[in-house]
Amino acid sequence: MDYRPDEQSIGFVLMDVLQADRQLAGLRAFADQDADLMRQVLGEAAIFVRDRVAPLQRVGDTEGARFAGGRVLAPTGFRAAYQDFWQGGWAGLSSATEDGGQGLPELLNQVLYEWLSAANHAWTMAPGLLHGAYECLKHHAQPQVQAQFLRRLATGEWLATMCLTEPHAGSDLGLVRTRATPLADGRYGLEGTKIFISGGEHDLSDNIVHLVLARLPDAPAGPKGLSLFVVPKVHADGSRSAVVCERIEEKMGLHGSPTCVMRFDGAAAWLVGAPGRGLAAMFVMMNAARLHVALQGIGLLDAAWQKAQAYATERRQMRAPRSSGGGVPPPAGGSLIIEHPAVQRLLDVQRVWIDGMRVVAYQTAIELDMARHHPDDSRRAQAQLWCGLLTPVLKAACTDQAFEGASACLQVFGGHGYVREWGVEQILRDARVTKIYEGTNEIQAIDLLVRKIAADQGQGLRALLARLSAQADLPQAGDMAQVTDRLLADSAANPALLPTVATDYLRCLALLALDWAWQRTMAVAKQGGSARDAECQRLHNAFRAWVWPEFPMRLSMLRDAR
Amino acid sequence: MDYRPDEQSIGFVLMDVLQADRQLAGLRAFADQDADLMRQVLGEAAIFVRDRVAPLQRVGDTEGARFAGGRVLAPTGFRAAYQDFWQGGWAGLSSATEDGGQGLPELLNQVLYEWLSAANHAWTMAPGLLHGAYECLKHHAQPQVQAQFLRRLATGEWLATMCLTEPHAGSDLGLVRTRATPLADGRYGLEGTKIFISGGEHDLSDNIVHLVLARLPDAPAGPKGLSLFVVPKVHADGSRSAVVCERIEEKMGLHGSPTCVMRFDGAAAWLVGAPGRGLAAMFVMMNAARLHVALQGIGLLDAAWQKAQAYATERRQMRAPRSSGGGVPPPAGGSLIIEHPAVQRLLDVQRVWIDGMRVVAYQTAIELDMARHHPDDSRRAQAQLWCGLLTPVLKAACTDQAFEGASACLQVFGGHGYVREWGVEQILRDARVTKIYEGTNEIQAIDLLVRKIAADQGQGLRALLARLSAQADLPQAGDMAQVTDRLLADSAANPALLPTVATDYLRCLALLALDWAWQRTMAVAKQGGSARDAECQRLHNAFRAWVWPEFPMRLSMLRDAR
Repeated sequence: MDYRPDEQSIGFVLMDVLQADRQLAGLRAFADQDADLMRQVLGEAAIFVRDRVAPLQRVGDTEGARFAGGRVLAPTGFRAAYQDFWQGGWAGLSSATEDGGQGLPELLNQVLYEWLSAANHAWTMAPGLLHGAYECLKHHAQPQVQAQFLRRLATGEWLATMCLTEPHAGSDLGLVRTRATPLADGRYGLEGTKIFISGGEHDLSDNIVHLVLARLPDAPAGPKGLSLFVVPKVHADGSRSAVVCERIEEKMGLHGSPTCVMRFDGAAAWLVGAPGRGLAAMFVMMNAARLHVALQGIGLLDAAWQKAQAYATERRQMRAPRSSGGGVPPPAGGSLIIEHPAVQRLLDVQRVWIDGMRVVAYQTAIELDMARHHPDDSRRAQAQLWCGLLTPVLKAACTDQAFEGASACLQVFGGHGYVREWGVEQILRDARVTKIYEGTNEIQAIDLLVRKIAADQGQGLRALLARLSAQADLPQAGDMAQVTDRLLADSAANPALLPTVATDYLRCLALLALDWAWQRTMAVAKQGGSARDAECQRLHNAFRAWVWPEFPMRLSMLRDAR
Repeated sequence: MDYRPDEQSIGFVLMDVLQADRQLAGLRAFADQDADLMRQVLGEAAIFVRDRVAPLQRVGDTEGARFAGGRVLAPTGFRAAYQDFWQGGWAGLSSATEDGGQGLPELLNQVLYEWLSAANHAWTMAPGLLHGAYECLKHHAQPQVQAQFLRRLATGEWLATMCLTEPHAGSDLGLVRTRATPLADGRYGLEGTKIFISGGEHDLSDNIVHLVLARLPDAPAGPKGLSLFVVPKVHADGSRSAVVCERIEEKMGLHGSPTCVMRFDGAAAWLVGAPGRGLAAMFVMMNAARLHVALQGIGLLDAAWQKAQAYATERRQMRAPRSSGGGVPPPAGGSLIIEHPAVQRLLDVQRVWIDGMRVVAYQTAIELDMARHHPDDSRRAQAQLWCGLLTPVLKAACTDQAFEGASACLQVFGGHGYVREWGVEQILRDARVTKIYEGTNEIQAIDLLVRKIAADQGQGLRALLARLSAQADLPQAGDMAQVTDRLLADSAANPALLPTVATDYLRCLALLALDWAWQRTMAVAKQGGSARDAECQRLHNAFRAWVWPEFPMRLSMLRDAR
């Protein structure tokens, strides 16, 4: 069973719960957006995802990307689908029209990528970095560099990489050693080896644009000595850069996406932005990428849920307890396994996260649009704050749940879940990487608590809590503010305190956001009085009964931590 | 880095905390066991595990079992290691001496299998079912059948399978359709297809003994119509049985262990035990197997922890918060990652489970020896009760933690954890199956709460809680008894209640048992006044701070469930 985007549910979240069309209507950039246009775009997107991308899910895993003498061949069908993808305008959905893009809201782009990831995580890795690379060059590159690359990245004709990690420098980019030596023509020669480069080499697109962190000769040690460079696989004159793919990694999953070791042998590159400002330029790219990874998490969880739900409504085993009450004889072959309360609960818990985190993530995408386009400074600042605090929360919580929930969905299949045939174990293997890349989930938690909340002594947090509380009844927001004050006060004497509890803290904020999302959902669902109302009510109950109790547990851990 | 059994830690749990030698000394069967002999046996076992089994971990995964025309070839080196294993007497460690075994306590066998699973889960699948098959035939088979098979299974010269599952019958064995038709010579012809048969075909041993659940012609529908049969791959006259391996599954992990689809084409088999008593005979085998799976979970978690611990004490990234206080400059290349509080916490939490659950699991193995050999009826009954309640708890809790904890250990490696090279992702993939086989963890929870605790209205539970409370200060045992009464009372009107909360209930009991284990450990560790004392104290603190808070959370879910 291939993944199918559920336009109905998404439409409900976007238009009914979030009123995304009205929120965006105030932005001049999207003055001509309305709900109908957005629905139409998503309808077309759903068809592309369903017909062209989802059917390649299995072959990506079984065949995998193949390395042969420095070249990398994508799995069968991947290139053709990618060529149709960018030529159909999907890669440039939210790029500026002046660069050849469609100029649509980032929100729609995020929904598209959620679906793509759900349908085929490995394939989606290729265009997944594109938009960040485009934004990075758009904001930081010199006109001469933009002229070469911007249009090609905006449309997706060429694909892009982020070359950050080195063998000894993972979470700690300050340790990066790749050197950039000035050349006579104003460019720089790059020397060094980068690892874990997704799509460092492949045959999906005719060129690949590498964004590379490196160190100028006179650069200081640490992160402030890093500058950003850009180098294409193939130059305008058709010559190949001195960039070599040494090998691709054997991984737990995501076999269809080549993870490359890239060697730079004096490759001629352009500086992007100011010397020593490489990390700042890269962070633009990384923050957008983090929301993108959160949406991957939601998509992967939805894909696993779809499979488990289908299996649970087909497969019969044993008599469910409900049947034992009413004197009805057990059906031939037993009850449907979804009739077993433990199975229903397990599936409901996944929907609580999927449907709830969509509300939070889509609102965050809207905030990205606000931060970019809103005329009002204070609204832009509010949007920045929302994104700054909730992006790490979403990245960590959605990917943790993707992995844990995919495992729960696998469990619904019993032994069948462990074999390749049903495809759910692939989702679990693929999903595992999302907890690691774009900053491990532990780094997200530290980013949230140490770098953001502690940095302004909790002011931003209080503003966020006030904003959430204005739209929902969140009595625990006060507990959260209180425990934050306590932690910040005690952390002066105990610098290990915040990093020790950062994950618990992030989980609390995730659960508060989920609570907010479900209250907003229920407020709208009740107006409908329909089948959706009953379904939402059941899921809201599941949230209260099985998901929310983690909040008081984590809060007690935060309170007791010394 | 290959897994290495830690004899010191195990010796501390066995001899100091549990005083296993003294507990077993009261049994005539083990009158000549003492601590020195036990240590010596474990010392030799550790060498075999380290030198012969652990080095085959990687090849098992990369090469895998290979299927070719009905035959299955084990990965390189697997057969030679297995032949040395059984010839060295390890397969028969706890089999009776009159059958060619060593007659040692089940306890030692369980420790051996924990180490084997940690070193090489896939290889260990082969002998893992042996002891259960031996016990099953020893207790249920007619002398003529025993004469053929018992000695060969006791020594491990031949390997064994359990043929239960069919395509439509997984957790619900009542749906089994394989037919057994009486033959003229007193045997039965088996017709049917069994799936998920671990080691159904291979070249590790010269023969394979299949234990098969099937239905006699006049058998009633459902579980009471199932009888147990035994059929070897090769008969005494050298002829092959009509048993065919149709294919082996492509799985998420455990590639070195063939999971076979077995077709019985009229294979001539002997009946074991009485007609219609097949499930009862199989349950003997399954209960022993469940404790074995719990030990697999502990072993796999320990293997993942060893890898992560080694990596964390070698790899440097960023400056740990501790260094920022004392004015000491950050070391070159950053701090060791184990100095980062979040990493230390994550590793400590795994040790809390490993070291604590060993106490519970080894005591359960001792109870198995008690149940088998103690002269006193009431002590045997007490042992049965302990095993009945704590075996499902151990199976589910240890395998859940194996998977979750292996994932946490993978996380310590960052991106390196996701690639094959470091071996930790293999443990995660291999470990995933332990949550499924021998009864899914959801089935364990229902077995505990519905089939055992509800069946005697909580009497057995109260006896167990009293026994635990006699050795530790467990104020929450009262909460547990109270919530049990509430659940049982309410379940009459609401038959879905118990299955809905069974997993929360099992977790509560697991955490109580862990609390008991750590209190027993601390009582002994404090006497030492050594480095072990400090280490235990740190882990006991980690238990209280990061593991125990799940208990009040789950208890609140049990209290609030309607």
